[in-house]
Amino acid sequence: MTLKKLLDMKKESMNHLQQELLPFWLDRCKDEKNGGFITQFDKDGRDTGEDQKSLIAQTRTIYTMASAYRAGYGDERCADYAKFGVDFLLQKMWDSQYGGFFWTVNRKGDVQIDKKIGYGLSFCIYSLSEYTLATGDPTGLDYAEKVFDALQKYAVDTMYGGYFEMFERDWTLCGPSSGGGDRKTLDFHMHLMEALTTLYEASGKEVHRRKLEESIELLLYRIQHPVYRTGIPQFWRDWSVAPQIKFDIVWGWDRFTDDGVKSNAEDNTSYGHNVEFAWLFLHALKVLGKDWRAYEEVILAQFEHCLRDGIDWEYGGVYVEGSHSGGVYDREKEFWQQAEVLIGMLDACLHFDLEKYWPAYENVHRFVHDKMIHHKVGEWWPLTTRRGEPIWTHMSHSWKVNYHTVRAMVQSIQRLDRLIEKVSAHRS
Amino acid sequence: MTLKKLLDMKKESMNHLQQELLPFWLDRCKDEKNGGFITQFDKDGRDTGEDQKSLIAQTRTIYTMASAYRAGYGDERCADYAKFGVDFLLQKMWDSQYGGFFWTVNRKGDVQIDKKIGYGLSFCIYSLSEYTLATGDPTGLDYAEKVFDALQKYAVDTMYGGYFEMFERDWTLCGPSSGGGDRKTLDFHMHLMEALTTLYEASGKEVHRRKLEESIELLLYRIQHPVYRTGIPQFWRDWSVAPQIKFDIVWGWDRFTDDGVKSNAEDNTSYGHNVEFAWLFLHALKVLGKDWRAYEEVILAQFEHCLRDGIDWEYGGVYVEGSHSGGVYDREKEFWQQAEVLIGMLDACLHFDLEKYWPAYENVHRFVHDKMIHHKVGEWWPLTTRRGEPIWTHMSHSWKVNYHTVRAMVQSIQRLDRLIEKVSAHRS
Repeated sequence: MTLKKLLDMKKESMNHLQQELLPFWLDRCKDEKNGGFITQFDKDGRDTGEDQKSLIAQTRTIYTMASAYRAGYGDERCADYAKFGVDFLLQKMWDSQYGGFFWTVNRKGDVQIDKKIGYGLSFCIYSLSEYTLATGDPTGLDYAEKVFDALQKYAVDTMYGGYFEMFERDWTLCGPSSGGGDRKTLDFHMHLMEALTTLYEASGKEVHRRKLEESIELLLYRIQHPVYRTGIPQFWRDWSVAPQIKFDIVWGWDRFTDDGVKSNAEDNTSYGHNVEFAWLFLHALKVLGKDWRAYEEVILAQFEHCLRDGIDWEYGGVYVEGSHSGGVYDREKEFWQQAEVLIGMLDACLHFDLEKYWPAYENVHRFVHDKMIHHKVGEWWPLTTRRGEPIWTHMSHSWKVNYHTVRAMVQSIQRLDRLIEKVSAHRS
Repeated sequence: MTLKKLLDMKKESMNHLQQELLPFWLDRCKDEKNGGFITQFDKDGRDTGEDQKSLIAQTRTIYTMASAYRAGYGDERCADYAKFGVDFLLQKMWDSQYGGFFWTVNRKGDVQIDKKIGYGLSFCIYSLSEYTLATGDPTGLDYAEKVFDALQKYAVDTMYGGYFEMFERDWTLCGPSSGGGDRKTLDFHMHLMEALTTLYEASGKEVHRRKLEESIELLLYRIQHPVYRTGIPQFWRDWSVAPQIKFDIVWGWDRFTDDGVKSNAEDNTSYGHNVEFAWLFLHALKVLGKDWRAYEEVILAQFEHCLRDGIDWEYGGVYVEGSHSGGVYDREKEFWQQAEVLIGMLDACLHFDLEKYWPAYENVHRFVHDKMIHHKVGEWWPLTTRRGEPIWTHMSHSWKVNYHTVRAMVQSIQRLDRLIEKVSAHRS
């Protein structure tokens, strides 16, 4: 790996972010008529007209705009867009009767699904805190804290620890099985750690620090496999492993058999989630002012597992899922795992071993820029075959949007800069 | 045991409650000058002038007045006193900056110790909920819910479950060891169950029900000895047993060695706490609409352990503490254990075996009325020798007051009435 290669790759990422990704969103997501963001676009980037605004899509777009602005991109437009999104979120999606945000509304803002979903609420905390950090407007942090308070009151299991995830509008726990009320998930707890990191960064409050530290303990000692340290997707209330099933409320494309159960339901781990955890954890430790070396082993376990089983050295990119102990179950390529592994492998280069992890970064970088990005339009395909031929072709809908893609570019460029600095210093 | 004996004992209790206990308090506790209650009285019932109002004494007196009124005693005076106490509590002890109530103030209401102590806050929930149930004034429940919300936000350990207990004014966790920030206690969790029972009775809210059910699970599966099912006083954060130490913040007369550690620090259980748990648990199950028979074994374990080791068949009354597996460590007689065992043994008679448990009730009843009550003045001695000679002689101070004594009479009379009904029906 040469300095020139680093500089070229940074340039490629900058170009994608500034000439393709951000323009894609700035040109079409603002709903001037109703407020908030339109987030349903077909393969050509045309509005599909689907009449839905999801909590995830609204908050992720707020995060995208606020974080891009904080990182120095998009001029004042990104800040303006973020505020535009916050206004809609507070006016149309906040439940002033019971507290918390609704799960989906239509474009006008009429409530469609009034449930309170922990996963979505963690993105409220994340995006609203980022908005305050980016703009200085205290309204974001104010509502982020309200959501934090509601989760502490309603979602925590004071017997076994951790958080329940699925609630009715009035915060009564949803029913069992596909209702999700009897399960705890990696997904929610990981995104809660991500959210509490930014909340604590914005507020500096001890209670936010304490709950962030506890969320880390939950991930390390409840959610990760005790031997392999890779993430287990679903648990019963008492943290015994639950077979991975499909919930009534979904936000992704996870593939299930017809009965809603995952193949290999009790031995399944996501390379993307594991590496995402590793870099989010490194970031959380930095915000907490803690030394990451105390957790070296568990962080390395994520990178190693992905390097060994998750990278497709033949066709490029990252596989979907596999076993904890070894072996791949699903070799297709989803967009978000590529995005998270870009950031994660750069962190592996920076913290551990540049020569060892660089090939994985370069592999995924090439797969993303050569196969995953639909350059003509500006966003990424959601799902491709192992070889990189698009399977699903929409550029965005309620559960895809821009958080993984824009964040991958913003965060990768920061890390490439640090690598460039490191390599330059070494040469001079 | 004859119907006549039951009627005589009820009469004796009624007489003590109406002619001695309630007049003791109604005649002297109201602080007309400053608001709130005066709760420091010497052996003759004279105000000692100690310039302190403790959270426990204020809330327990509110509970005493409200519960006596709800049970039909003291006419409107008890309701008026309860409101008088609530007014002071809200005006002088509520922390409008950080939420929660202060630990102690002086008689005028200036803050002395501004810490937030879980044990005291559970009595806020208990007494303020009882006040609303007794009087219909929604202010009580409103503040009980605020305290509940604060405990959920600040006190829960989301990693290991359960609640931390000792906090600084701003809710940062107190330091370790005698600071108490690294420990969890039976005392707080049991009184939390007691408080959440009355909170749920008053509010009917699902979240209060859920946390009450979880507090029961914590007591059954974390706090009780896994073999003997008797209560363990102190734990580390992860629920491993901690040696029982004295905290900086105290509210009782527990005896420690000079280094602040309890003799038999890791094998110590309180007969009074165990039987109090049993009857509070039966009451909680009733409020929850659950069948107590599902928990027969664990409830019986408390009564049996006390019957076998706790009752002093020679001099009467209940010992202080002993081993889980058998054997008594401390044979003195404290007032509150007598009070709780009166209620508990009547519940044992009603739910299990009248012939078996009646002698224990009768024993403690006689010891209380013959030795523990200072009839000339109206309240109970706080501590006596095994034989019933007073060791400490004050009638009340910040940590004694009236909750155990008045509640023991109110609750015993209700249970004696049910036994009278039962025995009469059997005879007719």
